[in-house]
Amino acid sequence: MAKLSGFPEYTPRERIVEQAVLDHLRRTFELHGFGSVETRAVEPLDVLLRKGEIDKEVYAVSRLHGAEAAELALHFDLTVPFARYVVENANDLDFPFRRHQIQKVWRGERPQQGRFREFTQADIDVVGRDVLPAHADVEVAQVMTEALGGLMELVGSPTAHATLQVANRKVLEGFYLGLGLADPTAVMQVVDKLDKVSPEKIRVMLAEIGVDDDSATKVLGLAEIVTTDTSFVQRVEALGVEHPLLAEGLAELEHVVGSIVAPERVTVTADLRIARGLDYYTGTVFETRLSGYEQLGSICSGGRYEKLAADNRSTYPGVGISLGVSRLLAALLADGLTTTRSVPSAVLVAVADESERAAADAVARTLRARGIATEVAPAAAKLGKQIRHAERRGIPFVVFAPAEPGGAHTVKDIRSGDQVEVDPATWTPPAADLRPQVVAPSPVPEEKNS
Amino acid sequence: MAKLSGFPEYTPRERIVEQAVLDHLRRTFELHGFGSVETRAVEPLDVLLRKGEIDKEVYAVSRLHGAEAAELALHFDLTVPFARYVVENANDLDFPFRRHQIQKVWRGERPQQGRFREFTQADIDVVGRDVLPAHADVEVAQVMTEALGGLMELVGSPTAHATLQVANRKVLEGFYLGLGLADPTAVMQVVDKLDKVSPEKIRVMLAEIGVDDDSATKVLGLAEIVTTDTSFVQRVEALGVEHPLLAEGLAELEHVVGSIVAPERVTVTADLRIARGLDYYTGTVFETRLSGYEQLGSICSGGRYEKLAADNRSTYPGVGISLGVSRLLAALLADGLTTTRSVPSAVLVAVADESERAAADAVARTLRARGIATEVAPAAAKLGKQIRHAERRGIPFVVFAPAEPGGAHTVKDIRSGDQVEVDPATWTPPAADLRPQVVAPSPVPEEKNS
Repeated sequence: MAKLSGFPEYTPRERIVEQAVLDHLRRTFELHGFGSVETRAVEPLDVLLRKGEIDKEVYAVSRLHGAEAAELALHFDLTVPFARYVVENANDLDFPFRRHQIQKVWRGERPQQGRFREFTQADIDVVGRDVLPAHADVEVAQVMTEALGGLMELVGSPTAHATLQVANRKVLEGFYLGLGLADPTAVMQVVDKLDKVSPEKIRVMLAEIGVDDDSATKVLGLAEIVTTDTSFVQRVEALGVEHPLLAEGLAELEHVVGSIVAPERVTVTADLRIARGLDYYTGTVFETRLSGYEQLGSICSGGRYEKLAADNRSTYPGVGISLGVSRLLAALLADGLTTTRSVPSAVLVAVADESERAAADAVARTLRARGIATEVAPAAAKLGKQIRHAERRGIPFVVFAPAEPGGAHTVKDIRSGDQVEVDPATWTPPAADLRPQVVAPSPVPEEKNS
Repeated sequence: MAKLSGFPEYTPRERIVEQAVLDHLRRTFELHGFGSVETRAVEPLDVLLRKGEIDKEVYAVSRLHGAEAAELALHFDLTVPFARYVVENANDLDFPFRRHQIQKVWRGERPQQGRFREFTQADIDVVGRDVLPAHADVEVAQVMTEALGGLMELVGSPTAHATLQVANRKVLEGFYLGLGLADPTAVMQVVDKLDKVSPEKIRVMLAEIGVDDDSATKVLGLAEIVTTDTSFVQRVEALGVEHPLLAEGLAELEHVVGSIVAPERVTVTADLRIARGLDYYTGTVFETRLSGYEQLGSICSGGRYEKLAADNRSTYPGVGISLGVSRLLAALLADGLTTTRSVPSAVLVAVADESERAAADAVARTLRARGIATEVAPAAAKLGKQIRHAERRGIPFVVFAPAEPGGAHTVKDIRSGDQVEVDPATWTPPAADLRPQVVAPSPVPEEKNS
């Protein structure tokens, strides 16, 4: 049976890595008061296509035995469903409303390296009713930098480092307007290509849309500005362009970059190359690069919408960031990220003879009652076979029944071979062995599989 | 915007209840060594339809801009995808392989009370390669009774009680063969209707498929046997029917019912009415009833397959149970199951003036560093407004900045109104307030909303 291209499925061991990542994200989001929302997998086709996303390859869904044409489709992101959810539940939500949403999304794209047709995203958003204070932008950035910092720690490599790049559409748009350029959006979409195209080529493309050479120099000069503090303000001002929208954007960006308290392993930069010209953001915009994984592009992007959604009475401004969990995980797993074991069990209770099974079950019950994940050997077998069973799964401890009636149980650490007498009613494995641990790949590629 | 019928979405508060249920299930499964597997949402149409499920209303999935006919469909259960996963990954799995799987499934059925088009199931299975010992049946039953016991405790109502009903297809089939009945499957499918149809009507239906009156009396006599211990064996034997398959089934059922150690709030019965005549089980079968929720039917069902899957070299016998999470939750939520708050936050840090925001953020950081979910007031406001903000969300504690520089922070329990001076670096809320708690509905319906 051929696997379906673009629909990855994890082995049990890979799934444990994914769970560790998702658990960490949820814990971080909840620590900041962002509760969970899940939306249904399908949306009416017209809702999905309304947002100008008509060129996205969506998956249509229809009843196999139904006569009607498809009216539903699988959601391709979590923003469109969340906007609908906010409007539908506006009466029951308290604004500003914070939520996180970790779900699968589907895109009928051609599968390629790191691009999937089914993948998991982790979004956080804050949405207000009619108004949303500027510090909401700081808040989502703060939460996501902490999530990224923890993720870098989980990944374990000493060089793992993330950079959150912050910009503001008002800065770019105001700057272009200040230069007297007629179509700032067109300019932004050209600048957005700086990732893939040389500045010389950008200059040619700018000329094609009517930007004179002096202005092009300033446009490129703005895009070169990257600072880890708020000194970008002076550097922009030094370019000598003025516009009220530019001033507003600079003040907003200064507030965001100056307020985030970055955790270890994360750098926050003001980076005026970041335009996100294809999205509908109206102020702050975010992208994120991972050192060593530059080829992934931005693994975590977002920004502020003046109008995430609207109904008859209100508009709902929002600001959010979305982390591409599957894309990041795929790269980390390919590089050897793994776990200490393939099962949750910390302990295997050996069964030397089927007549001992009830007693082994009782030992397992005693351990589980104290939160120790335990399995019982599936078949009675000799010592060596029981140990190999544990070794194959990476289960660190094997408990053996007393050699003679009334004797003591023994527990063997199968890594060291150490064996000691224990009372199953009180013995507890070291805390680090209670759950499978994520294990970083060796930093030297040659030793990766050693 | 009209909600989509059959695709329920939870409010933030309901979602917290769902998360508590799912977290409990996962924790229980993992304590027993059942790791998590997730499969993709879609299967090739031919895989889904192969299992004789052609009458199930599946949702076909196709690329909107693709020309080809639909070849994929959303999975309608977790058993078919898991069987495929086992065969695809057989080389990388250690057998017997235990896994749990908690995912959404989709059915294009007509929506009705408690029947959804998108819903969540929680499955556990043990699958062997070529062989699977009989105690695997005991194991999945044991794990699920513990999951159910914890669920009854979580639900909180003092009368919440689950009954796991165990039977064995070999007992029924062997008994019918011992009576000389030619088509035991047809008899089983009639007996399966005892839930909805009177014994008199069953007698008529049995006559229609050629079962004489004496045999019908014995068939109905067998279906009446329900015991909470292994005494069912004597009662079956007293009916005077003999067959090797019957003897084999009785021994298996005696082993399962005699081995499960039921937790509080769960009763295990041998119940010979349980046939599950429409499923492909070959030995042990399970159903589960919840007291007070009899109208839901079985909320948790399963059994043993001689051949869950097969490839060129091996067959994969399995035994599993599936819990209908959404159906159960919908009933409990409709009866008033709720939570102490609508957000994860245990603490709101008040902001009396925007100039205090950075200091408030620092207090929040201090609390979060010790695992206390904290949010900061979204807008500077007077005391009363900050307290109402917390009250609306059910956040139990509000921290206020010192009244004068160098003074102490105060924390107010908004339930009691008590206010005390605290040091944010050391103060911790009571453990019971750290996370939202699931709150049982009042047992007296009239007081439900008081």
